[in-house]
Amino acid sequence: MILDPKRLFPAESKARSIAAKLYETVRNLPIISPHGHTDPRWFAENEPFANPTALLIQPDHYIFRMLYSQGISLESLGISPLHGTAASVDPKEVWRIFAKNYYLFRGTPTRLWLDYSLENQFGLTKRLSSENADEYYEVIAKKLQTAEFRPRSLYEQFNIEVLSTTDSPLDTLEYHKATRESGWRGRILPTFRPDSLVDADYIGFLDNIQKLGQITGEDIGTWKGYLNALRNRRAFFKSMGATATDQGHPTALTADLDPNAAASLYTRILSGRSVPEEQELFRAQMLTEMAGMSVEDGLTMQLHPGSVRNHNRQLYERFGRDKGADIPSPTEYVRALQPLLNRYGNDQRLTFILFTLDETTFSRELAPLAGHYPALKLGPPWWFHDSPEGMMRFREQATETAGFYNTVGFNDDTRALLSIPSRHDVARRIDCAFLARLVSEHRLDEEEAFEVIQDLTVNLVRKAYKL
Amino acid sequence: MILDPKRLFPAESKARSIAAKLYETVRNLPIISPHGHTDPRWFAENEPFANPTALLIQPDHYIFRMLYSQGISLESLGISPLHGTAASVDPKEVWRIFAKNYYLFRGTPTRLWLDYSLENQFGLTKRLSSENADEYYEVIAKKLQTAEFRPRSLYEQFNIEVLSTTDSPLDTLEYHKATRESGWRGRILPTFRPDSLVDADYIGFLDNIQKLGQITGEDIGTWKGYLNALRNRRAFFKSMGATATDQGHPTALTADLDPNAAASLYTRILSGRSVPEEQELFRAQMLTEMAGMSVEDGLTMQLHPGSVRNHNRQLYERFGRDKGADIPSPTEYVRALQPLLNRYGNDQRLTFILFTLDETTFSRELAPLAGHYPALKLGPPWWFHDSPEGMMRFREQATETAGFYNTVGFNDDTRALLSIPSRHDVARRIDCAFLARLVSEHRLDEEEAFEVIQDLTVNLVRKAYKL
Amino acid sequence: MILDPKRLFPAESKARSIAAKLYETVRNLPIISPHGHTDPRWFAENEPFANPTALLIQPDHYIFRMLYSQGISLESLGISPLHGTAASVDPKEVWRIFAKNYYLFRGTPTRLWLDYSLENQFGLTKRLSSENADEYYEVIAKKLQTAEFRPRSLYEQFNIEVLSTTDSPLDTLEYHKATRESGWRGRILPTFRPDSLVDADYIGFLDNIQKLGQITGEDIGTWKGYLNALRNRRAFFKSMGATATDQGHPTALTADLDPNAAASLYTRILSGRSVPEEQELFRAQMLTEMAGMSVEDGLTMQLHPGSVRNHNRQLYERFGRDKGADIPSPTEYVRALQPLLNRYGNDQRLTFILFTLDETTFSRELAPLAGHYPALKLGPPWWFHDSPEGMMRFREQATETAGFYNTVGFNDDTRALLSIPSRHDVARRIDCAFLARLVSEHRLDEEEAFEVIQDLTVNLVRKAYKL
Repeated sequence: MILDPKRLFPAESKARSIAAKLYETVRNLPIISPHGHTDPRWFAENEPFANPTALLIQPDHYIFRMLYSQGISLESLGISPLHGTAASVDPKEVWRIFAKNYYLFRGTPTRLWLDYSLENQFGLTKRLSSENADEYYEVIAKKLQTAEFRPRSLYEQFNIEVLSTTDSPLDTLEYHKATRESGWRGRILPTFRPDSLVDADYIGFLDNIQKLGQITGEDIGTWKGYLNALRNRRAFFKSMGATATDQGHPTALTADLDPNAAASLYTRILSGRSVPEEQELFRAQMLTEMAGMSVEDGLTMQLHPGSVRNHNRQLYERFGRDKGADIPSPTEYVRALQPLLNRYGNDQRLTFILFTLDETTFSRELAPLAGHYPALKLGPPWWFHDSPEGMMRFREQATETAGFYNTVGFNDDTRALLSIPSRHDVARRIDCAFLARLVSEHRLDEEEAFEVIQDLTVNLVRKAYKL
Repeated sequence: MILDPKRLFPAESKARSIAAKLYETVRNLPIISPHGHTDPRWFAENEPFANPTALLIQPDHYIFRMLYSQGISLESLGISPLHGTAASVDPKEVWRIFAKNYYLFRGTPTRLWLDYSLENQFGLTKRLSSENADEYYEVIAKKLQTAEFRPRSLYEQFNIEVLSTTDSPLDTLEYHKATRESGWRGRILPTFRPDSLVDADYIGFLDNIQKLGQITGEDIGTWKGYLNALRNRRAFFKSMGATATDQGHPTALTADLDPNAAASLYTRILSGRSVPEEQELFRAQMLTEMAGMSVEDGLTMQLHPGSVRNHNRQLYERFGRDKGADIPSPTEYVRALQPLLNRYGNDQRLTFILFTLDETTFSRELAPLAGHYPALKLGPPWWFHDSPEGMMRFREQATETAGFYNTVGFNDDTRALLSIPSRHDVARRIDCAFLARLVSEHRLDEEEAFEVIQDLTVNLVRKAYKL
Repeated sequence: MILDPKRLFPAESKARSIAAKLYETVRNLPIISPHGHTDPRWFAENEPFANPTALLIQPDHYIFRMLYSQGISLESLGISPLHGTAASVDPKEVWRIFAKNYYLFRGTPTRLWLDYSLENQFGLTKRLSSENADEYYEVIAKKLQTAEFRPRSLYEQFNIEVLSTTDSPLDTLEYHKATRESGWRGRILPTFRPDSLVDADYIGFLDNIQKLGQITGEDIGTWKGYLNALRNRRAFFKSMGATATDQGHPTALTADLDPNAAASLYTRILSGRSVPEEQELFRAQMLTEMAGMSVEDGLTMQLHPGSVRNHNRQLYERFGRDKGADIPSPTEYVRALQPLLNRYGNDQRLTFILFTLDETTFSRELAPLAGHYPALKLGPPWWFHDSPEGMMRFREQATETAGFYNTVGFNDDTRALLSIPSRHDVARRIDCAFLARLVSEHRLDEEEAFEVIQDLTVNLVRKAYKL
């Protein structure tokens, strides 16, 4: 057995026993996944996954960034370059490389997620190693061809109640549509992610704007038409089940320009000759515009700022984006968000969820802001901090000022379908561990902890994302 | 019973038992409160408090910021807007709202403070809830009318040895005077807080300067006269028992201009046409001037930088300042303090206590500075960080570089009189918990820990504040 | 006995017992010290140390900064001013001051290091105090005159396998040469530290460049000649056993100018009329040049940025540098390192080890960078953070993203020879404590922990520093 039933609980026996009791009451609750990156096509077509490597390794930037850091080339992992002939790599060989280097993941969440899959999903109860790599590959490959491992069956087995994807406003949502019309009971919801239409630095930005005009019939040559086109697509997403939007900006900067200034800025942006400062101001203005539209249409708004994308230029030029080279950087929220919050922060029709890659902001900025503004809520620890230590630091640093009730439960934020149960399990266990410490230090009554753990696991997420 | 006798001690039994032994030796020591915001009038007039809501809820921004964040309006809590007719709200109804929402405070220090008051001060031994809200209100209201709950009696019951208030240099200190002359043994000391006279961005700044001139008879039209006027008021405060000053600046910036440049800057400031950069420079210069005066008159100097005040414009325009919308922001100390420290940092006549809202500075900047400059000391965790986790992080992050002996004990920093015993109790317990961990990890001998806990509780504060 | 055999292990009994088992397997492993500041002359001449004060107190800025912060003058500690008559102070009197104030070091690593020396090296088993100060001084002074306490004997007794010093490129390395030629088996390796030749703000910079030209015979009047001169000295250092370089810059800024621009910048720098921005750019460019030379010659590259040197001007003018007044400041890495990393970050011939004084960068910037770039590794906690809490925070904040295998073991970074065994012992114990927690929380298998602790103690450092 790789997994201990009391993993992640505190070592101290009294706290551990409280954590275990709390966990028993939430371990079997449904998974509500309001923010993630799975492919909607999986659920529409319900085809089997190709092979263990294609499912577990090649799409997971947590895995290949670590292997790459130790000198293992992306080519050898079968990641195709953007141009030229794709590397022809035997997926089994990639699996062997991974198994041989599995020790690199000691102490990381990737290790927790994968051990969970191996044991709970594939019944493999020894740690992955060079010795068992081939055997494990075969076992997994065989299972992937069975009906139980098709996407919809996994969704059901995992006890998922709802699963949100992340989608461009230009997307036709055809796979969402097909899934809805198929009669299958799973809820796969789109999320409105307008980065490619509000960030003039995005590749293909001007083309995207043109397409937006074509799709919506609005005159995107004008500021008003552009906003209406976005409104139009939000309405479409909402009609397809969306309950939230998401934006991933370099900074948290917001602006509240008067309409004429905004219109002029839009004209500059549309001219294709805008400078970075104008692009930053435009993104800032668009956050406030999106907040305004959320007040109108009720879509919950999410902001994920602070990542320096594609830091490794050579890698980016050769392999493109999302190859493990996005690096967090210091992020300021207090002054940056003031324009938006002065406009909409007191409006209870808005639910605005903030995320961060800069943990120093939890106690200094985010908890004080979320502990005051009615519209603001704190998202769970994100990306690099979606880990036992990261989750614990979040609770320790945010709870005393924001409380539990200005947080919104857990996001798995993943494209790795098989890791979803494990990620939620880790989050539940860490929340139980944190609550167990509060109880054992007599900072919270035990009966209250049982209520709180329910709220953290299902109630707060349902409320924040209107699910 | 709401309160466990071993609350806040480590869960692990050996460390817990050491913490409990340490705590026994300090739990009954007098409370020394060198920095707070209680109303001196209370002790001068010794009138009963109006009602539970007016005492416990309406003045406490920790409470109403949390309620506000969850969509409860300030009007419904009986907070009066600045203009127009005040809301007429039944204090009992406000109490019910609070009781109903008491779960929001789970995991926050507010909960610890209030539970302590309920049980220890009012004998109410079940958690506040909608069910017992009316009964509790009545019990508390009745007690507030008794002699034991008058301000002076509370001071005595709480075993307070000295309690400092915070006062404008323009204040006549009439209530301090009345208290002193009343023959009552309590020590209520004023603290010299010159923000309204050194910060040109302060509402009424120029009027304040005029008043300063009238009160002191100095020619505030000149830089020299202005400084002398401040000197004059410091002397008056000192004659009334003050041992310290306090300044609350947006940043920690200091300057050391030559006297002519400083005089010119003062002229600009006095003209009412200064720009923000000049105002920032003037505040910076005035920190160094105040340090110089502290060298002269021996008043301990405190600096509380880094709060972005009145972040929520709508709320500020409607209700004014101190409504829970002050938000911390990143604060730099190393370069900011260099001018002042180069002038006075090596002067042992100066005691200069630094506070922060940016916890990242503890290990990076403040502990290294305080572990070097003779004039510098580290204030306890402030405001949002005046909490079990915040206090523990402070000790963990500052002690290894600054030691215990460059710290100055605890500040309750509160206007909530009833919370004073609880706040000091929390601080004592967390210090015991920290020391118990050091002892149980053999990083400190047990006999030393007993000395240190005495120092942290009473000796260091007496020394730093000359009490 | 001052030292408990289980010191620094977790209080909780199960984790403690795991930590103790892990520790047993590494406690007697050799010390590999790839980065430090001991004096190579000691090992060349092998003369006895003068007296306890000269060995233990006067060279240790951790000690005198704490004493100074409490109002004890450097003069009274026998530290000589730069100019004027040196203070004549009885070393025994200095020792008494230290003993009397030993309580100031409670909770600091200095206390751990000194207790270790007292008990393990001098057999003194009671805590230092005013009472035993004179006796202890005599015992230590007597031992220092014995053969066992000569530098080479200490090196052997401490089971040091290799010890690196830090040396100017202008150094003749005569002591290293003498040691090598003496036939003694100790390995004392130089480290190439070019700050005085790449930082135009360094005192004597232009003279240093001239000397570099004289020593190497290269034409330092040209950019190419200057680079060749540095190459030449690197080769000399390498021939003398060096395996690494080190740079200590104010920031982590790097640049990658085209050769013409770099040559022009060098001309400006050489003119002696460069402004601070040019000097910063030159340091930035020289980091990239040094990385390029490391790709050529295989010397491991180290960068220690972020210290504001000589913060206390009065002290600096009177006593010079390294007097405890260097203060960390916020340090940005992500954008700062991009030029260098875009040039060499994917090159596996480069090993580039990053250090920080800004702990907020561990989880936000450094672990994500080191968990991606093949050339990057994370150095251990440095300077103020080379302490039990600091080391634990490092593991907690870096491991989940960078893993263990992008770290490089421990650096003692000290000029205090006697503290070397204690510093390594503290590091080993904290690593055991961290691993024990992972094991007891079932985040790592126990058998794996035994492998990891070997790697952290000896294997990773040998690999990173090519020892």
